Amino acid sequence: MDAAVIADLAARVRGRRPRVHCITNTVAQAYTANSLLAMGAVPSMTTAADEIEAFVAGADALLVNLGTLEADRRAVILGAIAAARGAGRPWVLDPVFIERSPGRADFARALLMEGPALVRGNAAEIAVLGQGAGLVAVTGETDRIGDGRRAATIANGHPWMARVTAMGCAGAAVTAAFLAVEEDRFVAGAAALAVLGIAGEMAAEHSAGPGTFAVAYCDALDRLDAAAIAARLKLSEEP
Amino acid sequence: MDAAVIADLAARVRGRRPRVHCITNTVAQAYTANSLLAMGAVPSMTTAADEIEAFVAGADALLVNLGTLEADRRAVILGAIAAARGAGRPWVLDPVFIERSPGRADFARALLMEGPALVRGNAAEIAVLGQGAGLVAVTGETDRIGDGRRAATIANGHPWMARVTAMGCAGAAVTAAFLAVEEDRFVAGAAALAVLGIAGEMAAEHSAGPGTFAVAYCDALDRLDAAAIAARLKLSEEP
Amino acid sequence: MDAAVIADLAARVRGRRPRVHCITNTVAQAYTANSLLAMGAVPSMTTAADEIEAFVAGADALLVNLGTLEADRRAVILGAIAAARGAGRPWVLDPVFIERSPGRADFARALLMEGPALVRGNAAEIAVLGQGAGLVAVTGETDRIGDGRRAATIANGHPWMARVTAMGCAGAAVTAAFLAVEEDRFVAGAAALAVLGIAGEMAAEHSAGPGTFAVAYCDALDRLDAAAIAARLKLSEEP
Repeated sequence: MDAAVIADLAARVRGRRPRVHCITNTVAQAYTANSLLAMGAVPSMTTAADEIEAFVAGADALLVNLGTLEADRRAVILGAIAAARGAGRPWVLDPVFIERSPGRADFARALLMEGPALVRGNAAEIAVLGQGAGLVAVTGETDRIGDGRRAATIANGHPWMARVTAMGCAGAAVTAAFLAVEEDRFVAGAAALAVLGIAGEMAAEHSAGPGTFAVAYCDALDRLDAAAIAARLKLSEEP
Repeated sequence: MDAAVIADLAARVRGRRPRVHCITNTVAQAYTANSLLAMGAVPSMTTAADEIEAFVAGADALLVNLGTLEADRRAVILGAIAAARGAGRPWVLDPVFIERSPGRADFARALLMEGPALVRGNAAEIAVLGQGAGLVAVTGETDRIGDGRRAATIANGHPWMARVTAMGCAGAAVTAAFLAVEEDRFVAGAAALAVLGIAGEMAAEHSAGPGTFAVAYCDALDRLDAAAIAARLKLSEEP
Repeated sequence: MDAAVIADLAARVRGRRPRVHCITNTVAQAYTANSLLAMGAVPSMTTAADEIEAFVAGADALLVNLGTLEADRRAVILGAIAAARGAGRPWVLDPVFIERSPGRADFARALLMEGPALVRGNAAEIAVLGQGAGLVAVTGETDRIGDGRRAATIANGHPWMARVTAMGCAGAAVTAAFLAVEEDRFVAGAAALAVLGIAGEMAAEHSAGPGTFAVAYCDALDRLDAAAIAARLKLSEEP
């Protein structure tokens, strides 16, 4: 995995414009949609019971984010995952705040049985899931991705990424877009983490605080090219 | 229809501060509210069954946007339209993504029977509705508005408008604000399209990508004046 | 109350990073979360019936905002308040738009019986509640806070604060963060109003309209320090 591979994947996202259906919390919806659009992907977000399976079946990837898990949103998740699996599409699990809600943690563990292509969370969330969660991306000051066979760390990013709501949620959606265009899930996930972290670095150079940073981050996702990736990438594969 | 007519309508929106009640998807709510406020109008957004008719009856126009059409939001739409009609207020239909959901398309067709003042959509959405939808605004690279008797094209705008979530949804809400202050629906709708496109052009001049563009667009709606409209308007009425 | 007291409180919020659980309308969620994060606090926002009490019990303060009061959100409010009271945590009531919905006004009056630490609203909203609402912050061109024994006016702020959706809602959440770190509720509330108004003034100096203003406001909440407070504070305690 080098900068050229990552740049090629980013270019594929922009060229194919994958549709990513997002079941996500209402706090994160707008920023998630804007991050996907900035990256060149196409979001949809309905959770209406009578419509969601049609949307998922027509999408290239699915995001399942457990933030603000109201009963009606929770009720459609298993059907949506089944629709994604039926169509051969990858889905990403983002187990938001499961360390603060035992019922949500149980639900997240049950979802692991449905075979997510990738699980993304912070260290506290991933710790709740324990071993055997498959391909896991842990985001934080340094990001780490691994599936027990392969692993990599990505040291790109900026502290302001933790000061903007929905930044992680949106990152999981962008990761789903990368999975839609690359069958090697480890490569897709690592590339997405690198792109997201590099966008954070670029955004910080045009920002005066977390407000302008959040906005500049979408600009950076749009503008980020092979040269920026080559100049900034800090990815280490583990032996 | 010339720049002076459009500038006068924009000034009337700012002077009268029409209340626009928006039944809209949760992705679009915040950007829609900010676009209305930037234009000088006053948004409200509740969809609670026991409250919505009071809000609609006290509003000057109603927006019905079919994005993320959860059952509880869908359930209040007909009552809200009846309240708007009872109060003699115009309402706008925005049939989001009906090309991807047959049930939603059926519902949109049923709503046409309730007499929207204007239907706004992209080409794919409007194609699903077919002929006879009344006054229709089709937004895209060039916008077009027509009701079978009169028609106009508006060539203002910027490609980044398609890279920001809720840009079209917010535009439909702003169009409702114009309908609240002008009885000639064709004139109100064409003026709104022109103002929205011109704001896009102005915003692009202060933006580095879709993130800063979305923010600058609200600044432009606030700042846009008769001189800007006169300098930029690209509206052609069809014979 | 002087600038040093207010600066100390702001520093305590940043140092302790209080968790603020927000029951708030979907229009305001993202901006409220970003304002809390910019101020150094930590938001959570679920309203799921089976989870909310665990979130509130683990939080340092609770916000109850009555905007877009759907039945399922309304149904969890009393339990959440009981959980906050049981844990000895302050809660803030923001009675959005109660002047436009008689049922919502009745509900707000019933909530006053549950002992909010502070009620925040605009003049129209507070007028509906009448006398005896306890500690009340009325925001507008000049803000005023009082509990019948003590009162203060804060003349900081900027007119664009009324042109951004969720600005008041987010301010109520930031006020809850201040209440989490200061037992004297009057001092906490007045300090929060001062900080919010000063952030508005700072933001306006970096803005070209309400769009850039909303973004710069989060930067200002992040950057605002003792020197800025000392230079700008316009707080008068009433005799």
